[in-house]
Amino acid sequence: MLVDKEWYQTLWEANEEKGAIKIIDQRDLPHAFTIRSLSTVQECYRAIQEMWVRGAPLIGVTAAYGAWFAAREAQAGVDPPAMFVKILGYLKTSRPTAVNLFYALDRVQKAVEMDFSDMASLALNEARTIRREEIERSRAIGKHGYTLLKDLAKKKKKKGPLNILTHCNAGWLACIDYGTATAPIYEAFQQGLDVHVWVDETRPRNQGASLTAWELGQMGVPHTLIADNTGGLLMQQGKVDAVLVGSDRTTANGDVANKIGTYLKALAAKDNGVPFYVALPTSTIDMNMHNGLKEMPIEERSADEVTHISGITKAGDVTHIRIAPEKTVAANYAFDVTPAHLVTSLITETGVCDATTSAIADLMKTKEQK
Amino acid sequence: MLVDKEWYQTLWEANEEKGAIKIIDQRDLPHAFTIRSLSTVQECYRAIQEMWVRGAPLIGVTAAYGAWFAAREAQAGVDPPAMFVKILGYLKTSRPTAVNLFYALDRVQKAVEMDFSDMASLALNEARTIRREEIERSRAIGKHGYTLLKDLAKKKKKKGPLNILTHCNAGWLACIDYGTATAPIYEAFQQGLDVHVWVDETRPRNQGASLTAWELGQMGVPHTLIADNTGGLLMQQGKVDAVLVGSDRTTANGDVANKIGTYLKALAAKDNGVPFYVALPTSTIDMNMHNGLKEMPIEERSADEVTHISGITKAGDVTHIRIAPEKTVAANYAFDVTPAHLVTSLITETGVCDATTSAIADLMKTKEQK
Repeated sequence: MLVDKEWYQTLWEANEEKGAIKIIDQRDLPHAFTIRSLSTVQECYRAIQEMWVRGAPLIGVTAAYGAWFAAREAQAGVDPPAMFVKILGYLKTSRPTAVNLFYALDRVQKAVEMDFSDMASLALNEARTIRREEIERSRAIGKHGYTLLKDLAKKKKKKGPLNILTHCNAGWLACIDYGTATAPIYEAFQQGLDVHVWVDETRPRNQGASLTAWELGQMGVPHTLIADNTGGLLMQQGKVDAVLVGSDRTTANGDVANKIGTYLKALAAKDNGVPFYVALPTSTIDMNMHNGLKEMPIEERSADEVTHISGITKAGDVTHIRIAPEKTVAANYAFDVTPAHLVTSLITETGVCDATTSAIADLMKTKEQK
Repeated sequence: MLVDKEWYQTLWEANEEKGAIKIIDQRDLPHAFTIRSLSTVQECYRAIQEMWVRGAPLIGVTAAYGAWFAAREAQAGVDPPAMFVKILGYLKTSRPTAVNLFYALDRVQKAVEMDFSDMASLALNEARTIRREEIERSRAIGKHGYTLLKDLAKKKKKKGPLNILTHCNAGWLACIDYGTATAPIYEAFQQGLDVHVWVDETRPRNQGASLTAWELGQMGVPHTLIADNTGGLLMQQGKVDAVLVGSDRTTANGDVANKIGTYLKALAAKDNGVPFYVALPTSTIDMNMHNGLKEMPIEERSADEVTHISGITKAGDVTHIRIAPEKTVAANYAFDVTPAHLVTSLITETGVCDATTSAIADLMKTKEQK
């Protein structure tokens, strides 16, 4: 996607520096655009742990390239296979709950086990495949979601753009390219559909304000930043044609775990007859979970994310300030669960389906057959 | 209410400085507690316009004392009655939409018209009456609301405190004492009921974090600050026993205009069987409006309130920072409307009633008869 009118992805192999990858250091966004090189396991570990890269798909791909570095480092040792497995174990501890991290590392490990004498090139091949698949998945989500948006735009009676509300960042910054929730929006925009995005700032970590508003702005997609409190009013006033969000985990019956606050927007969408779409790779559907409200673990994060915030002063200094009274106790739950009956459709790389047990089971069968 | 373990109200007559009033400069909260003296019309005007004082009841009382200063200043002139009316006209321009401002100034004007030779003392008397009535109103809302909270606590099956979620600041800082939405909470706390308050930070102006968390903290009422996105999850998890908010304007049929985001909490309360209470003085019921969704004007404020925020650095400097990408377009709607069918009860100084046309009409009749 575009940054300063040049095409970027979130991770690529460095041309000028053989054996290294480049990433965007997302900690600096939106106040600075910093590119960093990674060429050792230790650097990859740090990039994942300290959230230079974030978003499940991007974490997975970064880890896969980390496994390439691991293969190179292991090859130089006494017992390469044992060393390789040991380093992968270390990489797995970089973030506690990212399913894509484990998945990517396991895939590279299996590929390397084919022939330990050629570890590094086998690992690199598999990392490249994982990366390419992520891009294709986002692209397919975009195409499937675009058909829904095109239909909505046709049916829309009032003039003006198709207004889409999104929450958090399920954008290309979380993936390699296109994103998940943003993929249909970018597809629609590139196909010339008149779209406008309401961007929830998404407290407390403000991924909407810092990342989604930034990436839409760089691509030139018309958008308006709003406080998370605003979506209900906009829907009452007929100013939202669709809600389109991502998902961290979706259960076999269609309950959707996503960034805290998603459920409130789903309630307002239902109350106002606005379609509520969830864009997700099928890899995030958990077929072993059948009741999101009862079974989904909800991560609790540091209270400091609520009581403090970072931004930039007029003089251009990035500063961290406290916005609550001293010693205020705060709670910081990262996700909530939107019950399946509030979800209009799931948009996946395999196709669009209802958020029901049977439709999801059918979708997963279709996927296996492909 | 308590501040640093001493009792305060938001406005009082200065003992040590005859002819002056004292107020808390609320712009400095929660990072500093500053008391200021006002003794001229000009100072009162500035305190209202620049939001040293805020909240409809407090604005009204400040204006009433401003009318006292106006009477003193007019008495010194050539044509005191004409001069007095002229100065009141000036005071009315200090804030555009505050009904209490006009109401308070009109009351003092009527009182003074009884005997222009005694202007200043008549104005002072009326200002004192208005101030006393505001305190009594808050107190009565507190008593009526407390009976509801006490009943909820009795019915509560799980152990632990009665958990009340509130949005924005309808606290004593917006009134003279006790507040509106906070009045039943303070009453319950002082009666020894085990209460705990979930405080919505209330973006974009953060009145929850800056004011409600501060005043509850000073009083020692147990509370937890949360991002506005959090309430839905808490209700799903059974961690909220009641939602209790204020209202800027309530229609004759019970639709409630309040700080943006209130509607989303009302939807979540309905979805989870949590009672949704609105505390309000009857003076804010607009008997001429019968459909809040269609008729309520919604104030739009500066986008800067969404893209920028103030706080305090580790070094103790109050700083203003930008938290969105440069040049991001933002929208900032100040209120939304919660439809009457989502409201469990209205809590007023006259009593508790359903949010229906007939119940509100009955309540207003009762009030007139008192």
